[in-house]
Amino acid sequence: MIKTVTASMIIIGDEILSGRTKDANLNHLSLWLNRMGVQLQEVRVIPDIGQVIQDTVNDLRVRFDYVFTTGGIGPTHDDITAENIAKAFGVAFVQSETSLALLQKHYGNEKISDARLRMTMIPEGASLIKNPVSSAPGFQMENVFVMAGIPVVMQSMLLDLELRIFGGDKMLSKAIHVFEGESNFAGVLENVEKEFPNVSLGSYPFFRRKRFGASFVLRSQIEADLDQALEMLKLEIGAMGKECFDGEAEL
Amino acid sequence: MIKTVTASMIIIGDEILSGRTKDANLNHLSLWLNRMGVQLQEVRVIPDIGQVIQDTVNDLRVRFDYVFTTGGIGPTHDDITAENIAKAFGVAFVQSETSLALLQKHYGNEKISDARLRMTMIPEGASLIKNPVSSAPGFQMENVFVMAGIPVVMQSMLLDLELRIFGGDKMLSKAIHVFEGESNFAGVLENVEKEFPNVSLGSYPFFRRKRFGASFVLRSQIEADLDQALEMLKLEIGAMGKECFDGEAEL
Repeated sequence: MIKTVTASMIIIGDEILSGRTKDANLNHLSLWLNRMGVQLQEVRVIPDIGQVIQDTVNDLRVRFDYVFTTGGIGPTHDDITAENIAKAFGVAFVQSETSLALLQKHYGNEKISDARLRMTMIPEGASLIKNPVSSAPGFQMENVFVMAGIPVVMQSMLLDLELRIFGGDKMLSKAIHVFEGESNFAGVLENVEKEFPNVSLGSYPFFRRKRFGASFVLRSQIEADLDQALEMLKLEIGAMGKECFDGEAEL
Repeated sequence: MIKTVTASMIIIGDEILSGRTKDANLNHLSLWLNRMGVQLQEVRVIPDIGQVIQDTVNDLRVRFDYVFTTGGIGPTHDDITAENIAKAFGVAFVQSETSLALLQKHYGNEKISDARLRMTMIPEGASLIKNPVSSAPGFQMENVFVMAGIPVVMQSMLLDLELRIFGGDKMLSKAIHVFEGESNFAGVLENVEKEFPNVSLGSYPFFRRKRFGASFVLRSQIEADLDQALEMLKLEIGAMGKECFDGEAEL
């Protein structure tokens, strides 16, 4: 039996939608989840609007094993993620004593402003996620993980999640490359995909060093199928009198 | 009256979700839409699964003025966007004579393989979107614009959309920057946002040249409000005895 564990991601922030900031968290989270045996299956980028945050969280948390959010947990008025996670779950929005103690230690007692106190508020029943970079923690509410938007902080929070995420069979992948148009190989690719229902096969055209080409990426949770599918693909390309080149897929 | 025109984007592709490829189209489309007077309000990244494509298109095309998709319109078996757009609209999937003529001209008559013919199929009633880079066109079906995933091709297709997209009042933006923690300014930011309901005010912490700081970005479709809100913010920061620095927001 193959065990598949799934995740979705919610990127919260007007600054991504307006083009002011380029998201750097999707790719990092995706690769981290692969290593954990979890498959990222949907991503949404949404604005800083309370009702949209609530609706999106409630839609995704029942459809995927895990949900990860980034953004909107800082000290200013536009940081509205935490309170809307509480509303999405229908629980109270309360101060975390642990979070308060952490911030008091980080900033010293007298420097805790009202704004920073805002960062100590979490949904009732949530557990904290450590922030080794700047102290203010994220939190986990059931299967929803609420993290900072700043990439270095978000990445540091993942360290604390390694023992809380339970993956399934990892998605393995291998790739080969050709240096001509992908359309010439369409029939071969289709044959291989039909032969191996547990292998997905993607074709990604590229233009590098002034040459057109394509990478064929095979992905499967079953190693034997992956290897056999790769073997068949190479044989069929060879039988066409064409060349292909090995290369590990980045994933 | 302020006229607001909205858009959403669907990034179709397992390779983005698996982390193999970093998306480069979101940011480009977002900035282009800003210039057109259109606000990107939601983005979804979804896998190459027909039903998911159909459901996502049908959800978003009734909620936003425009929908843009990228990816999955090439010649191989995993390019399933076009046929699923046809299914989403409940129309036939037919060969475009114009597209066929374009590809015949580009490749020469004898080189048109079955795989390339796949790229001439569009939903009945769709109009083509020019592809100056590699010929195979995208298409427009009502308010849904279906484009290639390769950034250089996607960007070239936008040229053909400049006369088909009708924007509203542009979202204008201005920014100032401070070189200390954003939490110190939380109260001031809140005051300004309360005073100007037509201005949204985002606070974005940064760490640059070994200094912490924050950018405060004001956005509005009403220029006078934007200018007054910026003036008030500067005055209030000055009244705190703090310094701030001008700088245009990238948007």
